[in-house]
Amino acid sequence: MTAPILEKLRFRDPQIEMAHGAGGSASWRLIDDLIAPILLKGSPEPLGDAAHVGVGAARVAFTADSFVVSPLRFPGGSIGELAVNGTVNDLAVSGARPEAIVVTLVIEAGLPSCELEAEIRALAAAAERASVIIAGGDTKVVEHGKADRLYITTAGIGRPMNSLRISPHSVQPGDQVLLSGAIGDHGITILLARGELDIDADLVSDTRSVFPFVEALASASGDGVRWMRDPTRGGVATSLNELARQAKIGISLREDAIPVRDSVRGACELLGLDPLHIANEGQFLAVVAPEAAQNALAAIRSVPGGEDACIIGEIRQQPAATVVCVSGYGGTRVVDMLVGDPLPRIC
Amino acid sequence: MTAPILEKLRFRDPQIEMAHGAGGSASWRLIDDLIAPILLKGSPEPLGDAAHVGVGAARVAFTADSFVVSPLRFPGGSIGELAVNGTVNDLAVSGARPEAIVVTLVIEAGLPSCELEAEIRALAAAAERASVIIAGGDTKVVEHGKADRLYITTAGIGRPMNSLRISPHSVQPGDQVLLSGAIGDHGITILLARGELDIDADLVSDTRSVFPFVEALASASGDGVRWMRDPTRGGVATSLNELARQAKIGISLREDAIPVRDSVRGACELLGLDPLHIANEGQFLAVVAPEAAQNALAAIRSVPGGEDACIIGEIRQQPAATVVCVSGYGGTRVVDMLVGDPLPRIC
Repeated sequence: MTAPILEKLRFRDPQIEMAHGAGGSASWRLIDDLIAPILLKGSPEPLGDAAHVGVGAARVAFTADSFVVSPLRFPGGSIGELAVNGTVNDLAVSGARPEAIVVTLVIEAGLPSCELEAEIRALAAAAERASVIIAGGDTKVVEHGKADRLYITTAGIGRPMNSLRISPHSVQPGDQVLLSGAIGDHGITILLARGELDIDADLVSDTRSVFPFVEALASASGDGVRWMRDPTRGGVATSLNELARQAKIGISLREDAIPVRDSVRGACELLGLDPLHIANEGQFLAVVAPEAAQNALAAIRSVPGGEDACIIGEIRQQPAATVVCVSGYGGTRVVDMLVGDPLPRIC
Repeated sequence: MTAPILEKLRFRDPQIEMAHGAGGSASWRLIDDLIAPILLKGSPEPLGDAAHVGVGAARVAFTADSFVVSPLRFPGGSIGELAVNGTVNDLAVSGARPEAIVVTLVIEAGLPSCELEAEIRALAAAAERASVIIAGGDTKVVEHGKADRLYITTAGIGRPMNSLRISPHSVQPGDQVLLSGAIGDHGITILLARGELDIDADLVSDTRSVFPFVEALASASGDGVRWMRDPTRGGVATSLNELARQAKIGISLREDAIPVRDSVRGACELLGLDPLHIANEGQFLAVVAPEAAQNALAAIRSVPGGEDACIIGEIRQQPAATVVCVSGYGGTRVVDMLVGDPLPRIC
């Protein structure tokens, strides 16, 4: 690795804006055009995935995420729970069994100790549910007005599962796209928890470990599994656009097949948003070989919380690097990555 | 691991203050009385050290630190360089060879892209100097006024060195305390960079990887090495107090033997601070068996930047759990952990 002092960068935005953190197209430009050319030179890691690196003779899956969600607590979860599940899920969808996590806290001076205690308990409880140990951490405090109550960063390590050989480059025309359940619950829950919409919905975040889906799928379909992802920031649309661009294939979704709760659909209509762009924190996307699809679907449905899993689309040769969605009436629209940041700080 | 919902905690401070992040006694209360009983139940990791955890058949050293230093750039370094070296050093003093790092950024909206680029370059350059790969990362953006330009978190993994068997419990009366060079440079450099003192000193941060010291010491003294630490927040005094309490031994320092630059001593006198409490980012402390001490000292001195290494004290049976310092005139004073936070956000 070298630090290319004189390298010309393509990144031209004069300053960093909220959209650069939203996980959509601006985030990708920041990563692809500024961060990766300098920092990940020669080994660009896709945003949000875990790297598999050698430590002595062993391979170790390794990842980290920062969490800045506001508010700290919301129906169905809190920042502490998100921080564990988010990192566990990055390890899981990279094809690894999550083993251990370290946690760092950036605390705004003046945070009531009881709020901190609640998040420490949330971290511990989520780690126990996900069967990972918390191995250590670090605490920093900044002046009042230099953070927003509490930011949490987690890093995780895991053990690569030998039965899985996943890569965007394994994805083939004809492969099937599987989804574990209803989309958009997390993002819309956060939005409603802020009181920014006058909607009263019985909606909770879907935050959870997706490792049980990975484990079931690995055991049912093994090398029929081509690719996996937890569609968080930017939603299913952004995750599948990343895949389409990396694999240089097309993805055709069937709109009718994608489960969306009425409350999520209603909020999206009010806001002019597409549920495919809304963040999830416990859903699971997979691409599997056509002959493995029915077994894979049964495996995901056998996991608690995966009962509504379904096949939402398939891989096509054309149009390359593009995701399209076919409506119940047969109309076809292009589904792009998220642009801008309509729902900031949802994780 | 279990989440003890009803457990009675000893932590009684109603809210989190700057001192809880200073690395001294308030930080220890926060860790010992709130965080560790819930989060690190059964496996309390000392603050600032790396855990060694099993991943399959392998052992992996694993740690993370957040960096919130202000200003972002200062003589001798910047937040990006600190963020790599800090995590590399936590791995190194745990007795591991640093291998890979992941980086997360929390960016305040409005940060000029050129400032971000400078820190990305600093991260890459420091990683190259420390011979670690950067394996991935994550970026979040928060609204203007919800951070202070840029916070960086790094996590690191490393390979435990078989030649080292270090633990506070290995430390014995008669063992010698070694220090790699002059103390307090980093903390006072940050203070001066803020313009808070009307002193003009030719001082730079000592930020660097201490792994070359660890490697030299391991090869020269092997199992004669009992304990190692990079004395960051809270300084040499806090690191040695931690050791004295964990090992239930006494530590006697010779004030004349501890290297302190005139500019650091002068600033400390103005502020009523003890150089033993000032943070370092590239110094190295070790406790070695008496028969290994001269070899160990020669090994540390052979490393560039270690020329001024010296033996600064020794381990005693009594007074247990206490650090004392003997002046050139023969007077003895107790050296306690850092109390309060006289120099906030130095890392």
